[in-house]
Amino acid sequence: MSVTAAQGFTAAGIAAGIKENGNPDLALVVNQGPRLAAAGVFTANRVKAAPVLWSQQVVKGGQISAVVLNSGGANACTGPEGFQDTHATAEKAAEVLGHSAGEIAIASTGLIGVRLPMDKLLPGIEKAAAGLSAHGGEKAAIAIKTTDTVHKTAVVQGDGWTVGGMAKGAGMLAPGLATMLVVLTTDADIDTAGLDSALRAATRTTFDRVDSDGCMSTNDTVLLLASGASGITPGLEVFAEAVREVCDDLARQLIGDAEGASKDIRIEVINAASEDDAVEVGRSIARNNLLKCALHGEDPNWGRVLSAIGTTSAAFDPDKLNVAINGVWVCRNGSVGDDRDLVDMRYREVRITADLAEGSETAVIWANDLTADYVHENSAYSS
Amino acid sequence: MSVTAAQGFTAAGIAAGIKENGNPDLALVVNQGPRLAAAGVFTANRVKAAPVLWSQQVVKGGQISAVVLNSGGANACTGPEGFQDTHATAEKAAEVLGHSAGEIAIASTGLIGVRLPMDKLLPGIEKAAAGLSAHGGEKAAIAIKTTDTVHKTAVVQGDGWTVGGMAKGAGMLAPGLATMLVVLTTDADIDTAGLDSALRAATRTTFDRVDSDGCMSTNDTVLLLASGASGITPGLEVFAEAVREVCDDLARQLIGDAEGASKDIRIEVINAASEDDAVEVGRSIARNNLLKCALHGEDPNWGRVLSAIGTTSAAFDPDKLNVAINGVWVCRNGSVGDDRDLVDMRYREVRITADLAEGSETAVIWANDLTADYVHENSAYSS
Repeated sequence: MSVTAAQGFTAAGIAAGIKENGNPDLALVVNQGPRLAAAGVFTANRVKAAPVLWSQQVVKGGQISAVVLNSGGANACTGPEGFQDTHATAEKAAEVLGHSAGEIAIASTGLIGVRLPMDKLLPGIEKAAAGLSAHGGEKAAIAIKTTDTVHKTAVVQGDGWTVGGMAKGAGMLAPGLATMLVVLTTDADIDTAGLDSALRAATRTTFDRVDSDGCMSTNDTVLLLASGASGITPGLEVFAEAVREVCDDLARQLIGDAEGASKDIRIEVINAASEDDAVEVGRSIARNNLLKCALHGEDPNWGRVLSAIGTTSAAFDPDKLNVAINGVWVCRNGSVGDDRDLVDMRYREVRITADLAEGSETAVIWANDLTADYVHENSAYSS
Repeated sequence: MSVTAAQGFTAAGIAAGIKENGNPDLALVVNQGPRLAAAGVFTANRVKAAPVLWSQQVVKGGQISAVVLNSGGANACTGPEGFQDTHATAEKAAEVLGHSAGEIAIASTGLIGVRLPMDKLLPGIEKAAAGLSAHGGEKAAIAIKTTDTVHKTAVVQGDGWTVGGMAKGAGMLAPGLATMLVVLTTDADIDTAGLDSALRAATRTTFDRVDSDGCMSTNDTVLLLASGASGITPGLEVFAEAVREVCDDLARQLIGDAEGASKDIRIEVINAASEDDAVEVGRSIARNNLLKCALHGEDPNWGRVLSAIGTTSAAFDPDKLNVAINGVWVCRNGSVGDDRDLVDMRYREVRITADLAEGSETAVIWANDLTADYVHENSAYSS
């Protein structure tokens, strides 16, 4: 289903030869209309890949007719030549599809600092265009995988309309956003402003709160395309909720497939003085390597949680902090609480609750543990 | 040598039974005067261990007659009872040594969230006091080890005066400061204000720029004690430089013995608009798990350096960034530079130079790589 669950979209995924192992590496998603409205959010990293710089300009125009996505190379830190490669990709897709290049978004993922093999990529666009189908969403989702072990798709049905999407990402997952490419589609008849507000609200509490390894990518891209093909214009609130559900589903799938991870860690910060405080504390806990190792070892090491909270600027009194791990309040009032042997750490999901005892705001951050497999995967990736 | 290299100091290190394995775990350092001047810097973590809270108060008085240090337990997150344990430790040392408890500094290291076995610790103080010696510095340095594989000492000789010291620390090393206990002694005749300015200047560019694993401890303590026993008052500048040299030496020893590390990474940020920018960029590079894994795999992955720089708020233009690894400028103008195959990664020390091309400020941060051994050591530590 994926990006073709909604009416008005076709997609394809093929092997263009960008990846040397012959796996699928090029995806094409085309909005057949009648509407071509679109919104996008991009990495907060100031070192942005060429396709991010390009697609940011496209999104400013408010219309996207097609998205070209490739795995096998990030086209980041490739200089003016890399930007020219992205431009040429858009021109080629425009020519093949009969659209304007200024309405073609580009997204790339893979190694940083390597030029794309344009002699493979450009013919690949013709091949992908020839294979476009209203059932092509699954193949497109497969073609954007890098170290992902599974492809990720999600669909939410509204009343006569649909929001669907695909995502890739398995590492370099950190706020603002993860290393991920996400394309969401809908046949709801929503204008650019409505798409933009729904997408920003959704990513703020989903993809922006995934923090697998503290590393922020140069290529993150989340696009939302509306075809209007259902002819239905749902209320903005119900539409935004559907977009949030799809984003939340995909974000959880990213965490569940993070490189080398053996635990999915749900960090809920409660009773914070502000939402910003809650997010800052949640991220600090999410990024603490010592804690991430302890949780990998199934050790409910609440001291490392407190140590992480202590590095933040959030409002709290060290003597009033409470921490629960998997529902057991192992730390009460900044000191030893209930018996840590009561904590059952056998399952993949670990729930940490950090009570700041200062206010009533809350945030949830998702993270992963730190494992020898993560080290192995990331010390060998480019060599 | 260690803390007894300077005249006017005695020390001891013994096994009090705090550690279950019977290893040395209690150190005592006594200033025999004639001066009892002292200065201290402590962790910036807002969750501070009981001995940190205690010793901060002692240092405010400007005099320290003795320092009691224990490994085998951090006495952090132990509530009012833990603070009472620290107080009782100081009272016991005061009684045994014939000093005021308000002049006894306390430092603890080990697991967070566990009370100290006071029935072992208090008799240990009597035993340590009985063993005090002007040659006891080495034994004291050994007694404060936790996961350290070697004990750490350093000495710098002035013209008729000496600065010496000992340190422990092998993980949870991050700015503001590392998980470390450091006691420096001098027989130079320097007052509290002089000690304080020399110590702050020294730690700012040494211990504060060690970032082994991004984790900030609850117990970091660096104390500088002056006995005045040499009768010589050196110029403050030359004295401060000696203190800086001892701190730099000990800081490098901490990085060299970091848990599970196979590489010592020297990150020099050059041509920054401000020193703050240089430090922010250096720390961001130091904490990037993906880069730390790549360097472990001897992969000169400059793309991950750029990705880390891009997450900072420092002044830079992405298209003007240059990065050298072990002297090879693998990234020029934000894009592919010299051949990465020219980078020789075989040695333990890895030098990264990040050129921001914005100004003339510089900073050096020392870090370690991320290894499977680090994960193993820290996933099993408390269980």
